[in-house]
Amino acid sequence: MPGPLEGVTVIDLTQIYNGPYAAFLMAQAGARVIKVEPPGGEHIRRRQAKHKATLLPFAMLNANKECVTLNLKSEAGLKLMLELVSKADVLVENFAAGVLERLGLGWDVLHKVNPRLIYASSTGFGSDGPYKNYPAVDLVVQALSGIIAATGYPDQPPVKAGGAPCDFLAATHLYSAIVTALFERARTGLGRAVEVSMLESVYMTLTGFLGAYHAGGKAQRNGNRSGGGALAPCNLYPAADGWIAVSCNNDKDWQAFIIAMGHPEAGEDPRFKTESDRVRNMDELDRSVGEWTSLLPKEEIFQRLLKARVSSAPIREVPEVIEDPHLHARGALKRIDHPEYGPMVVQTSPLRFRGGNQVPYRPSHALGADNREIYGRMLGLDEAVIEKYAAEGVI
Amino acid sequence: MPGPLEGVTVIDLTQIYNGPYAAFLMAQAGARVIKVEPPGGEHIRRRQAKHKATLLPFAMLNANKECVTLNLKSEAGLKLMLELVSKADVLVENFAAGVLERLGLGWDVLHKVNPRLIYASSTGFGSDGPYKNYPAVDLVVQALSGIIAATGYPDQPPVKAGGAPCDFLAATHLYSAIVTALFERARTGLGRAVEVSMLESVYMTLTGFLGAYHAGGKAQRNGNRSGGGALAPCNLYPAADGWIAVSCNNDKDWQAFIIAMGHPEAGEDPRFKTESDRVRNMDELDRSVGEWTSLLPKEEIFQRLLKARVSSAPIREVPEVIEDPHLHARGALKRIDHPEYGPMVVQTSPLRFRGGNQVPYRPSHALGADNREIYGRMLGLDEAVIEKYAAEGVI
Repeated sequence: MPGPLEGVTVIDLTQIYNGPYAAFLMAQAGARVIKVEPPGGEHIRRRQAKHKATLLPFAMLNANKECVTLNLKSEAGLKLMLELVSKADVLVENFAAGVLERLGLGWDVLHKVNPRLIYASSTGFGSDGPYKNYPAVDLVVQALSGIIAATGYPDQPPVKAGGAPCDFLAATHLYSAIVTALFERARTGLGRAVEVSMLESVYMTLTGFLGAYHAGGKAQRNGNRSGGGALAPCNLYPAADGWIAVSCNNDKDWQAFIIAMGHPEAGEDPRFKTESDRVRNMDELDRSVGEWTSLLPKEEIFQRLLKARVSSAPIREVPEVIEDPHLHARGALKRIDHPEYGPMVVQTSPLRFRGGNQVPYRPSHALGADNREIYGRMLGLDEAVIEKYAAEGVI
Repeated sequence: MPGPLEGVTVIDLTQIYNGPYAAFLMAQAGARVIKVEPPGGEHIRRRQAKHKATLLPFAMLNANKECVTLNLKSEAGLKLMLELVSKADVLVENFAAGVLERLGLGWDVLHKVNPRLIYASSTGFGSDGPYKNYPAVDLVVQALSGIIAATGYPDQPPVKAGGAPCDFLAATHLYSAIVTALFERARTGLGRAVEVSMLESVYMTLTGFLGAYHAGGKAQRNGNRSGGGALAPCNLYPAADGWIAVSCNNDKDWQAFIIAMGHPEAGEDPRFKTESDRVRNMDELDRSVGEWTSLLPKEEIFQRLLKARVSSAPIREVPEVIEDPHLHARGALKRIDHPEYGPMVVQTSPLRFRGGNQVPYRPSHALGADNREIYGRMLGLDEAVIEKYAAEGVI
């Protein structure tokens, strides 16, 4: 069975995390994705020689793509790009706002070349508004969106969320916008310009804080307690060998929790009787719960609470996550022997389509590996011209 | 111009954040979304009487939907659901794995009733694999995915990322899977079951840590420094009146930074000359930069670094973000006077389609507000039957 995006051709002008992940999802759903990089490689590939830590991210986000080089600042390069555009369904990019327009590859130009083209952009702040030219990286978006202020302990400095949630929330919105426009095109026959701003893509993640503030409460970081502070116990607690997260979402959970922890007598404690009681006496409650949990290993607590159907989980370190048996059993993680980088664990697409249409995993390609395939077979250039272009730095 | 999902009918059986946001994106893209709640309301609506902090999240994630009540545990309710299914394009749900199947509303049944139906589920861990029955809330997924271990200061306990990134990353993947299946259906004529696991939806956000670990380095939380520790200066620094985030992504940024901060002499400092020098001497560098920044207000530093084109941002508190002039200028945030809840600021869809097709914003509806419209006009039930069903608790 072909992938659901079978037959869709994507020109991928993206770099780093945001755009590449959107195009990766398309590639794993069966689209033909042609990753177009400058002759020196996109930003994250250029860093590979110096920073080995960029190898796995590049491999993971660029699987199942064909890789070509192209100098968009050369006249011949620009002409090749227009030929690619005429044969494509989607162009996706995450340059700073206005970069492609200045290269002569704006929506107006490309829409004329190919009225069916979906033209998709993701930037930090969108194509208009007072911040449109602000430089954006994940850290900056975390700062401006309030994520950093909302993360950490109240008596400590704020701290960013681990990883790059803003890049990836923008990426999934970007994929969403592209496929929505493809769906629409099946009816209208016409392409669309779509855009996603990183800042807008993360606003709603703080909805618990926004709700608390709207209700007249504080909207400040509170460690590992629930966003609005409306649940208790809901926190990280010390285990004998690490940390355990517990979230009792109602009185029933609380009853199940104290029995599982061997403290049924706490059910009679007037400080902890109802959810309102527990929220009012949260500090004392957290202290008591911490005393119980600190005597047991985290896995023991986790297994007890699983049986009791109380939301809970041990805090796992990154190396444990990479070996997660569930993710490997589901095929969400995959061990590959990458032709350039050697053995590694990579992720497959989280989009699951029942019916066995996962496309075979193809490891990321080397820089320019598909120049002959795309420029020769797809665009029909002679071998001699391809060599000339390579020598001249056009590709 | 109609929204790109005009003509698509969605049955929204979702609750809390994950599923409702996916269906909200569909509603704002022009789909007709029928939110089906148990007669007491979905989880977050049921908490409104006790917890005012749930009002805004509910309103924000359920705008532009029609709201009906339905008791899926009653025979008549189940029959009404099958009639709805026969007229729908999409059913989306985020119950625990297996709940709908046990109600007699599994994929096999519904696919027979309506072979064109897209059946979309989001759960914590997916419909198979060893964790499939684990209870999941955002906190649990943050713990198991490594996000908590990767967040916070190295000499402090781990801390969760502020807000609910796992819920919303699952939601955007869910929307992605649904619209991909709708696109495919335009070709095949057949619906699909699609599913998204929260855990799989967040794995790649730690790609910087995964890359560092793959390269033989540590994959541990490091406060506000870059994931792989490959950039410097890249951190939060104290300003005279708060905190400022700065990320110098290369030597050029560093040169621009020191000039903007009035410390060109640092360019001659052998400890800080190249990126490798700065990474090697990161502690000393962060101390020096912190001394410079602590003398100036955060807005002054931000404006200087904007001019210098260095990635930077002041740490903003949630109340400042709600009033963000850029988000309001873009229409990403909107002031409404909600008919049930009064004045509030809500978010519109981050999916932007050029050409003026934003559908008008319709505030979230009251519980069961559209029972007559849907059961009467859409399914053709008599007024008397609707009243009988209401009295019997079927709707």
